[in-house]
This record gives sequence, C-alpha cells and structure tokens, in this order.
Amino acid sequence: MNSTTTYSIRPIGFVHSQLIDKKDAPEQGSEGAPEACIKIDKEFTKATDGIVAGSEIILLTWLHLSDRNVLQVHPRNNPNNPLKGVFATRAPDRPNPIGLHRVQVLETAESVNLIVSPLEAVDGTPVIDIKPVLCNQH
Amino acid sequence: MNSTTTYSIRPIGFVHSQLIDKKDAPEQGSEGAPEACIKIDKEFTKATDGIVAGSEIILLTWLHLSDRNVLQVHPRNNPNNPLKGVFATRAPDRPNPIGLHRVQVLETAESVNLIVSPLEAVDGTPVIDIKPVLCNQH
Repeated sequence: MNSTTTYSIRPIGFVHSQLIDKKDAPEQGSEGAPEACIKIDKEFTKATDGIVAGSEIILLTWLHLSDRNVLQVHPRNNPNNPLKGVFATRAPDRPNPIGLHRVQVLETAESVNLIVSPLEAVDGTPVIDIKPVLCNQH
Repeated sequence: MNSTTTYSIRPIGFVHSQLIDKKDAPEQGSEGAPEACIKIDKEFTKATDGIVAGSEIILLTWLHLSDRNVLQVHPRNNPNNPLKGVFATRAPDRPNPIGLHRVQVLETAESVNLIVSPLEAVDGTPVIDIKPVLCNQH
C-alpha cells in the first residue's frame, strides 16, 4: 500500500434540505443552518438501528461541490485572513472533501428518514457515514 | 447522482505507530493508546500549514482492515450486548470504514511529520483528512 492507492466510497444516503445553493449555506451548522432529512438507502437501514430521537450524532458527508485541488485558503473566504493550509481549517475545498457535522436527531421515521438539525450541507449532498457522539469528545 | 455513484479517496499520509496488530489496539484513543507519527505525503504538506504543536485536531483515517459488509454488531465486541446498527456505534466494521480520532499535536517536524497522541489506529493506516477541533463542538 502506498499513497497512490485509492479507496472507493459509496453514499449510504443523501441530504434533503431547503438549502439548494451552496452560497446560501452557513459555514457551520451552528451559524443558523436549518433542519434537514437524511434519507438512508434501504440497503443500509439495518445499520441505523439504535439511533434514537434526541441523541446527538456525527454525520460524515461527501462535499460533492468542492474543489479537490485546493491546498490553502483564506479562512472564512476573507482575503484579509492570511492563507492557511486547508487541514488547519474547516474549508470544504480539500483533497478528500469530507464534511463533519454534529447534529441532533429530531425524529427517526421508519429507520429510513432521519430528521436532524442544524445541518449546513446542501440538498443532494451524499452521506457517507454516521457515528454517535462520544461524551465530551467528538 | 444516485446511491450507486462512488467517490475515490486518496490517502494524504499514513500512520506510523508501535501498534502493529489491530487486536492490540484499544477501542478508543482515550483507552491507553500511544502517540503516533503522521507522515504527510509531500504533495500535501502545504495543506498542513497552520497546524501547530499544542493544538487539538481531528484525524480522519481509512480503516483498511475493516469488514465493509457488516451492518450490525455487538457493541464493544461483547456478545452479551444486543446487536446494534453500526451507525449507532463506533465499530470499525461499517460500509465506509472511516475512523474519527481527536488527538493532540505534540510536535510538527518540517510539516511532513506530525507527532500526535493518543491514537488507536494501527501502523500503516491511511490518513484521509485533517480538521481543527471547533470550540466545544467536534
């Protein structure tokens, strides 16, 4: 195995949201993002067993609108902020554009629809993994 | 785009650790994991600019030894624990085996070697993304 090996990721579901244009999306969920529905692919619904309303989860998404060639950015898109490596920021443009979103589960409908809030990812964003929040940790 | 679309992930570096066998790895970093060195691929070192010793970061890894067909597990590998969906656990076996590790940066040597602790990922684990910890959030 070396750094040119690649791995294939397949969505386990998709974000359904009123946020259509990424220009309208806040930079972080805590900055006024709306609730959204995560539609889990039927093949994976057994894997959501145990996710309950009221719990906090971490959604990992594939930020499909990102530019994967960007290595440095002006944080928060502000040219007055000095350039910084993308790994030292939460910028969506990065070599592997994985989004990390801590959200609360409001409702779980038939295991295939998770209503969560707040989520800054736009409508159609692939979801690639879900994890529980560990106490005071992630 | 639909759920059969796949995305290609390429490692941005690798874990170098004294943990060789996954049987010896603790389930969480906080459960006695050692320090480790993240060797960043030279192509991506510009993206680490701004990561400083003393800071906390989130490493995303590709858990290459995982079984991607597992949808439910007995939490903590204990058969007395009832089966639970992998998305409600931190089990490494899951459809897209992404590891999420909150670690402290102890040292950054020449931007290509990040010494971090504690890290439960075994030697040779691909690193796929790095993000800063947001205050009280992730």
